[in-house]
Amino acid sequence: MSDNTKTADPCVMVIFGATGDLTKRKLFPALYNLAMDDFLPHGFAVIGVGRQEMTSEEFRSHMVASLREFVGKPDEKILKWFEERTYYTGGDFDDDKKLFGDLKDLIGDVTTKHQIPDNFFFYLATPPSLFANVTQKVVKNGLGKEENGNWRRFIYEKPFGHDLESAEKLNASLLRLVKERQIYRIDHYLGKETVQNILVFRFGNSIFEPIWNRNFIDHVQITVAEKLGVEQRGGYYDSAGALRDMIPNHILQLVTLTAMEPPVSFEADSVRDEQAKILQAIQPYAPENVLNCAVRGQYGEGKLSEPGPDANGPRSVPAYRNEPNVAAYSNTETFAALKLAIDNWRWADVPFYIRTGKRMATRHSSIVIEFKKAPFMLFRETGVERLRTNRIVIHIQPDEGITLHFGAKIPGPIVNMGAVDMDFNYLDHFGEQISTGYERLLYDCMIGDATLFQRADMVAASWRIVEPVLDVWSALPARDFPNYPAGSWGPKEADLLLERDGRTWKNLVN
Amino acid sequence: MSDNTKTADPCVMVIFGATGDLTKRKLFPALYNLAMDDFLPHGFAVIGVGRQEMTSEEFRSHMVASLREFVGKPDEKILKWFEERTYYTGGDFDDDKKLFGDLKDLIGDVTTKHQIPDNFFFYLATPPSLFANVTQKVVKNGLGKEENGNWRRFIYEKPFGHDLESAEKLNASLLRLVKERQIYRIDHYLGKETVQNILVFRFGNSIFEPIWNRNFIDHVQITVAEKLGVEQRGGYYDSAGALRDMIPNHILQLVTLTAMEPPVSFEADSVRDEQAKILQAIQPYAPENVLNCAVRGQYGEGKLSEPGPDANGPRSVPAYRNEPNVAAYSNTETFAALKLAIDNWRWADVPFYIRTGKRMATRHSSIVIEFKKAPFMLFRETGVERLRTNRIVIHIQPDEGITLHFGAKIPGPIVNMGAVDMDFNYLDHFGEQISTGYERLLYDCMIGDATLFQRADMVAASWRIVEPVLDVWSALPARDFPNYPAGSWGPKEADLLLERDGRTWKNLVN
Repeated sequence: MSDNTKTADPCVMVIFGATGDLTKRKLFPALYNLAMDDFLPHGFAVIGVGRQEMTSEEFRSHMVASLREFVGKPDEKILKWFEERTYYTGGDFDDDKKLFGDLKDLIGDVTTKHQIPDNFFFYLATPPSLFANVTQKVVKNGLGKEENGNWRRFIYEKPFGHDLESAEKLNASLLRLVKERQIYRIDHYLGKETVQNILVFRFGNSIFEPIWNRNFIDHVQITVAEKLGVEQRGGYYDSAGALRDMIPNHILQLVTLTAMEPPVSFEADSVRDEQAKILQAIQPYAPENVLNCAVRGQYGEGKLSEPGPDANGPRSVPAYRNEPNVAAYSNTETFAALKLAIDNWRWADVPFYIRTGKRMATRHSSIVIEFKKAPFMLFRETGVERLRTNRIVIHIQPDEGITLHFGAKIPGPIVNMGAVDMDFNYLDHFGEQISTGYERLLYDCMIGDATLFQRADMVAASWRIVEPVLDVWSALPARDFPNYPAGSWGPKEADLLLERDGRTWKNLVN
Repeated sequence: MSDNTKTADPCVMVIFGATGDLTKRKLFPALYNLAMDDFLPHGFAVIGVGRQEMTSEEFRSHMVASLREFVGKPDEKILKWFEERTYYTGGDFDDDKKLFGDLKDLIGDVTTKHQIPDNFFFYLATPPSLFANVTQKVVKNGLGKEENGNWRRFIYEKPFGHDLESAEKLNASLLRLVKERQIYRIDHYLGKETVQNILVFRFGNSIFEPIWNRNFIDHVQITVAEKLGVEQRGGYYDSAGALRDMIPNHILQLVTLTAMEPPVSFEADSVRDEQAKILQAIQPYAPENVLNCAVRGQYGEGKLSEPGPDANGPRSVPAYRNEPNVAAYSNTETFAALKLAIDNWRWADVPFYIRTGKRMATRHSSIVIEFKKAPFMLFRETGVERLRTNRIVIHIQPDEGITLHFGAKIPGPIVNMGAVDMDFNYLDHFGEQISTGYERLLYDCMIGDATLFQRADMVAASWRIVEPVLDVWSALPARDFPNYPAGSWGPKEADLLLERDGRTWKNLVN
């Protein structure tokens, strides 16, 4: 979160796995948008690296084609600007002499030709199994060490490990090669705006922080509901599941932003220090508690309501087990809900209920802060039967905004209370959002702002939290799958998780 | 604040001063509205008493005429219902044998005819100088004592005294005749809705009360701005002034509602006990501090902006000294601002700035709760230059509502904060307001709910607060009147009153 409006440092971006979908759909359009908004430096070049043999000219025409496909009507001047500074080198990743030798030569040519200092960032858009290997070869070829004031940075796509052991092993491998500050572990689910919005809301106002603790808050609910099924990701998803896919990175990030103490500053490490403290304070489950505090679900066939002018009534969708590339008797969960306890002074006895799932009733992400009720005694002689609770909802998807839910008197001779929502929507108030997702992440990497990227200790701490659940679930496969219909709010066990505590999920519809 | 939706107790309402403007413009229309809404009992009658000799038939036709004038299109059935139960008796108030003997006989006839138990309420719409005298004669004629479970109540119009001594004397005279619980001192400026709205907002929600104290609040501002001049009230007003007219009753009531501790219940005496504690905790000024902590003003000629489709640009209006029935060199203030200190645990060191005036820029009453700023340190490396304060505004006139004013991040790569208002408007959310002003007050008197009426100790405590100001102002007449132009926000000294403390008035425009 730097106060930097200037263009990024001059640098060369090297994309490993450059011929894949991510480059085409996300990275090129993001770079284009950054250039449009003047965030890219004049001294800039992109080098694609892939298995495929291809000339730089061919790669350029691929790039232009993807921009025409994914950007709408790209500006021809900017297309030309990119063409002039886009290169490619291909070959076998195992034959590191050849491939990395070629890359080193190409980087040398490019930096000379475009007069770029030796700032490189390597984007690993490869399968995770190659992360350590590619990094090792970059380093071995002398491209990884920061010297003479120039930087070398590595962005790793998620998933970063598939459990605690693999994540720790991967971290250890990378940290033998480069320094933590050179590593950027991406979670593209969380736009930078959300992080900043939550921190500014919490710490830029004086009236919320005093009540943001166990004395006043009853519990917190975090929901990340997707309406989509697994789409084309069945192969990966079926080996991962909802918990691995969403909780250690995205949802725990939301938990930490909601729960963290005020950081010393908005610098990345100050923020991440406080986030890490929350992750450390979350108590991992004893195995015997997993089945009480964690709920899994898998969607069966069902109907999705499709609001909007073109809707033809609810649409039938298949069960998870009938999705492409999913095993016919898959026991992979597409829904996960956990009850977390943060054992620190601020949050002791305040449960954080989190849930995420695919094929849910609506696409909606939000953080609900549910406050304790006011004492009722004043109202006992009035027409009020019970007091409503106060609630702050931080909306994240599809629109960002904040709702304050409180009670006011309904006009008339009886004292009777009605529920009132005060809403603030970031779009309403501040106009069109400038950018989302990868633009911001690439830019942050180029300016060295790691706030939004997970640090090694956070990755490990996150896996540590979910590890007992993964273990128990894998040892005791679910016997009731599928247990929720597509288009619903998940299995009834998830409702029971809260009902046992006298609470209910707020199923918010946008 | 009773949980009573039923009609009021059967009773006879006796109006002293029944031929005056108040009866015509306010009391009759209010009774009509109550009947329309089914709040009046079947056993109900009105007896007008005045100096003028008139038959009941004549009085009825006056009543019908005023309803046709002030209610719009009255319901003929209800007009007839009122005609059947409206009576009059006239005569010299000093000849109590005759007048009160006639009244007693008439009450006897009316209660028999309409089968009404001996519940009487006497509305003193007379000059204040007659309050004690009329009450004494009512009592002397055996009409004032509550017996056999029947009630006798007295409503006194404001002003209730014109300084501490006269108020205490009046209270003492009345309390020798009747009990405090029989006395209803009216302040029609404050609709019952406002009182209940503030109490429900403060005590029916859990998130506001924890921050409603000196630890989090910087100061409170209460503004009651009128756009009108003195209109036809010049005679009374020129002997009273803005301070007497508005502060001891109306504005101090708003102060107590804002500042009071949670009452034991919403019963009248529980609420008034807490209000009285606030009045006791407000420190009267030492005479040498009056000129530092109190500001007076008088309007000169000026221009009023007249928004709306029919506006012809700003309208010129005369100076106060040129208004009808105002002395040509009048030193009466039409504006008053005070800085009050409430010396208790909740409010020590939190100033309450109050102001009221005629011919101000707009018609607006509100309570502004200004919170302390959040600590800035987090933002020192960002683009934020200073943090805005959080503010809760309780709007009272012309519309009732609540605004929460806080900061949120403006989208974009820099951390920058914008001001955001969340609004709640009672009308928007709950539809048309049911009733205002006198309806509610009359109804409250008939059901014995005194929440909205000032108790003797509150009246005395209020005068005690303003007494030093009245004394100093009368001893040292202002030498700079007129000192603010009509259509402005008052004299510049009122701005200095806050600027000396590093604060500013929030001049809210609807």
